[in-house]
Amino acid sequence: MARHTVRDVRSENRFEVLHALFDLGPSSRQELARHTGLSLATVTTLAGEFLAEGVLRIAAVERNAVGRPYERLTINPDRGRIVGVDVAETYVDATVYDLALDVLGRHEAALDEDQNDQVYVVDGIVGAIEAALKASGTGREGIVGVGVSMPGHVQHDSGVSVFAPNWDWHDVHIEELLAERLRLPVYVDNPLKAAILSEMWFGVGRVVDSMAVVNIGTGAGAGIALEGTLIRGMTNNAGEWGHTLLVLDGRPCRCGRRGCVEAYVGAPGLETTLAEIDPSHPALGRLGQRDFVEAVAVGLAAGDPVLRELVRRTGRCLAAALGDLVNLLNVPKVTLTGWLPTALAEWLVPAVRDELPHHVLPGSLPGLTVGVSEVPGNAVSLGMATFTLERFLTRLGLAGTARTRPQPGAEAAQTIG
Amino acid sequence: MARHTVRDVRSENRFEVLHALFDLGPSSRQELARHTGLSLATVTTLAGEFLAEGVLRIAAVERNAVGRPYERLTINPDRGRIVGVDVAETYVDATVYDLALDVLGRHEAALDEDQNDQVYVVDGIVGAIEAALKASGTGREGIVGVGVSMPGHVQHDSGVSVFAPNWDWHDVHIEELLAERLRLPVYVDNPLKAAILSEMWFGVGRVVDSMAVVNIGTGAGAGIALEGTLIRGMTNNAGEWGHTLLVLDGRPCRCGRRGCVEAYVGAPGLETTLAEIDPSHPALGRLGQRDFVEAVAVGLAAGDPVLRELVRRTGRCLAAALGDLVNLLNVPKVTLTGWLPTALAEWLVPAVRDELPHHVLPGSLPGLTVGVSEVPGNAVSLGMATFTLERFLTRLGLAGTARTRPQPGAEAAQTIG
Repeated sequence: MARHTVRDVRSENRFEVLHALFDLGPSSRQELARHTGLSLATVTTLAGEFLAEGVLRIAAVERNAVGRPYERLTINPDRGRIVGVDVAETYVDATVYDLALDVLGRHEAALDEDQNDQVYVVDGIVGAIEAALKASGTGREGIVGVGVSMPGHVQHDSGVSVFAPNWDWHDVHIEELLAERLRLPVYVDNPLKAAILSEMWFGVGRVVDSMAVVNIGTGAGAGIALEGTLIRGMTNNAGEWGHTLLVLDGRPCRCGRRGCVEAYVGAPGLETTLAEIDPSHPALGRLGQRDFVEAVAVGLAAGDPVLRELVRRTGRCLAAALGDLVNLLNVPKVTLTGWLPTALAEWLVPAVRDELPHHVLPGSLPGLTVGVSEVPGNAVSLGMATFTLERFLTRLGLAGTARTRPQPGAEAAQTIG
Repeated sequence: MARHTVRDVRSENRFEVLHALFDLGPSSRQELARHTGLSLATVTTLAGEFLAEGVLRIAAVERNAVGRPYERLTINPDRGRIVGVDVAETYVDATVYDLALDVLGRHEAALDEDQNDQVYVVDGIVGAIEAALKASGTGREGIVGVGVSMPGHVQHDSGVSVFAPNWDWHDVHIEELLAERLRLPVYVDNPLKAAILSEMWFGVGRVVDSMAVVNIGTGAGAGIALEGTLIRGMTNNAGEWGHTLLVLDGRPCRCGRRGCVEAYVGAPGLETTLAEIDPSHPALGRLGQRDFVEAVAVGLAAGDPVLRELVRRTGRCLAAALGDLVNLLNVPKVTLTGWLPTALAEWLVPAVRDELPHHVLPGSLPGLTVGVSEVPGNAVSLGMATFTLERFLTRLGLAGTARTRPQPGAEAAQTIG
């Protein structure tokens, strides 16, 4: 059974304080205590550590009603730089963030979706990171870590390995490969875990503690958080909602099974559906998936009735598959992220909302909201940057344990969590 | 956000110690500390409380290698009696347990599946409980609580209400109705929550902390535990796996949707499949679902090839739907419970195992096991008795807080959680 140690609690409390600063902006220690539910004593201790580490700085000294001075604390953006990278079948998107996770620069490079060579992909990732660093005017010296999301099954147990069936990659030690090339700390995870972490920190996680974020592009999957816990599963493979069934014995899926959700709501699925409606439609036969989806968006804006039918059918499939997710997990919020829903949101979201009540059980429908994620920028890159920030804080915190004496009694006397 | 208080931690630690005694049998304080990961000081404090409350008793005094005497503690079965009740569409099964959750007596009464009147159902429940008490020679005075599972959506937020679409019940306050009739503390929950709790305490939960238990009878659903937490969802409606899709636009389901898993793997679903294979098969046209499934088991034992085809098709549907559950949650263990899998296990489980690798992603397959639950007796009744035991311990523990001084510092210095 998972058991919390004082060290875990301390680490979690550090995240909570930082998390609160992202939610609230510059805040007094009292405000942080109120928002987190931690005691003022605990917040004061943690804030002292963070100030000593340079992670926080004093934003302002103000006076309250009776004239007492108090400090407003804020995250020190210049304590370091973090790179978050979203690697997909069709592109690499690298973003450079400051420590407050504000964007300093970004570079997106296309990946040829028919190339799956390791050297080609690694070169593409390194090139995109270097271009993003250049675009942001950032040198390598201040970088505290690089977080890279890979499209596939990322296992952490015996060194990080990636299994990416779409590329025919088996047990590729990409974290090692990238760390060698970049000479920087690298953390690799899966886009679903990255998307849900950014949703927890910067999206609907600000108001609820259980949610799913559905990421759709070439493929489809769901990041899941339940009662504040990111669900990883036994082998970090949870969330493969794209490979749950919509239609037993239906369309062939890339995974080898037939009838998976992904085969209907991923970009190639939309091409298949459009070909079923009108095989001679001009949006078909384009070179890449993203060109196809862009052409669909342009056509929808122009009122193309065939594309409206495509949206109706896709919206129905998506609503049915989201209904399954809600019926199983009874989460109050589902958000959509990724390049496909972003491009088609204006038409797809209303189509999904129309159909959803036909697919969700009455007991799980009241209070349920479905919409496009409000996480700013690329949610996967931001999530990877957030994981990297968490790891950096943990490293600092562990170093700090030797210096500052923990006060378990004082914490426990308030709340533990 | 959910935040643990010292009171929660104390309550959880009490459950852990009791839980360990169920796992280990009579144990020394040292063994309990080792098994739970709690400190010996914490275990000694909690054991002292339990002994004072009469929940534990000293089973034996033994001597270790150097001749020091030590006590073996055990649950005191005679501290009270608990009734666990499984109410389904076709029956009421009431079991009387002692405080060690050993069965003292049981009574099963048939419910007419075409009757849905509240008075009829309440009379059926009360009658079954009274018969079980009589069968076990138990008077009402020692009963610490009655746990009743109702087939439907049980909400706890504003008084307990039940929504049971199969009976056309809306917002029925069954807990109140039963407590009035029985003049005993009553706790009502949903069978999926009861099945997973008993699986956590007495089934595969003894070796893993993430699992799903799939309950199949007239309907179908899944109880889910992830990292030791029972997943309830926003409105206690999580686990409705029976109402996730197998085939979009497939067979009509009782829920109003088409193509749900339940319509293929529940007892009426098997009747439909058999009618598709051989509409004149003699097992069809019987009065009740349970007679039908019994006839199927008898026919399978006799080698009926039509029924073998029924098992093959049903096993394939069940494997596909279990594959979806595993692909989404990446749990290492799935168990089957309920009267239908119990009756057909000999044929159905091999059929499911044959098909499962075609439906589970490669990254989630290694280490996955699927089998019939090894929870003894009726898992739903036992789970409801366990919930009732938890509530009884919490009541005693809260009363105990006033008497014994908690030692938050001592607990936190060891482990928390």
